[in-house]
Amino acid sequence: MNLYSGQISHLIEELSKLPGIGAKSAGRLAFHIMNMPVDQVESLSKAIIDARTNVRYCKCCCNLSDQDICPICADETRDKKTIMVVETPRDLAAYEKTQKYHGVYHVLHGAISPMLGIGPADIRLKELMHRLQGDVDEVIIATNSSLEGETTAMYISKLIKPAGIKVTRIASGVPVGGDLEYIDEVTLSRALDGRTEL
Amino acid sequence: MNLYSGQISHLIEELSKLPGIGAKSAGRLAFHIMNMPVDQVESLSKAIIDARTNVRYCKCCCNLSDQDICPICADETRDKKTIMVVETPRDLAAYEKTQKYHGVYHVLHGAISPMLGIGPADIRLKELMHRLQGDVDEVIIATNSSLEGETTAMYISKLIKPAGIKVTRIASGVPVGGDLEYIDEVTLSRALDGRTEL
Repeated sequence: MNLYSGQISHLIEELSKLPGIGAKSAGRLAFHIMNMPVDQVESLSKAIIDARTNVRYCKCCCNLSDQDICPICADETRDKKTIMVVETPRDLAAYEKTQKYHGVYHVLHGAISPMLGIGPADIRLKELMHRLQGDVDEVIIATNSSLEGETTAMYISKLIKPAGIKVTRIASGVPVGGDLEYIDEVTLSRALDGRTEL
Repeated sequence: MNLYSGQISHLIEELSKLPGIGAKSAGRLAFHIMNMPVDQVESLSKAIIDARTNVRYCKCCCNLSDQDICPICADETRDKKTIMVVETPRDLAAYEKTQKYHGVYHVLHGAISPMLGIGPADIRLKELMHRLQGDVDEVIIATNSSLEGETTAMYISKLIKPAGIKVTRIASGVPVGGDLEYIDEVTLSRALDGRTEL
């Protein structure tokens, strides 16, 4: 039974393909869109197409950008000799928000996952190795603290170390504000291993 | 500080205008869209525009439709003498899902709310009154059980009754599966008032 007219059903179907949007949310969004002014709807529709068609990978760090070289790589005040390796552009944005990091990035667009059949050739590793032929002091591996992230970190570190470049990994431990009682054992033992003198 | 390139920021901004989508979800959606195949993105973008530009109000019941007359009003097997009055097309869809109602609908697109400055002239009431000049046996008022919905129900009932048309209101009470312990007093007393003989 078709509850809504064809075009609305189609919109709901398209919206519910997006992550975290089920049939109910898609319905709510669709009806909101039906009540939006036409110019706002056009603007939304255009933003979707424009972002997808104009945005590409930065030729240097593989971050998403609408220029050939992303603003971070183009920024002359940033330390090009320190490269932080992250899995996704969102991880990069998370570190940028801290305003504590002044080096550059390399976005892998994924992590090695034998389970999902994602090997070293499926992520932007070749581009990273190419960059390391230049003048690089340190590679900071900031992949996620998941099985895939750790695997990727280990793999990259083994690959880079022979070249004599310093490879570091971001610390793993109790998050700020975290309550020890609710934190898993692996994190707790990592926090113990990584303890620093006060 | 601009974390993302202009086009991505713009897309995130547009997406976060939608209801229930905050900055974080908008970011996640935007990056999902960046990774979708171009044809799927085009299809989504087109569905948004098409739905907004082609869908209008049914000339009979004011439901959203891509034809002049919606499929329910056009269906000859439905009882045109019974009209259920609902606030929104989503309420209509909710009743259609029950598959228990075989009459037609009238969509008000809102409810009277003195608080929000929405008066009887701001909802599709004139269209309902116009329909009642035809051959109608019963008007079932199925507005929400909120203050606005009840106000609207009272208003419509007073308006219609002088014309000698039967006006009914859907029952208010304990929802199926509801636990008495957690149900508010107003609902409980309504359920008591509306008790039926077994």
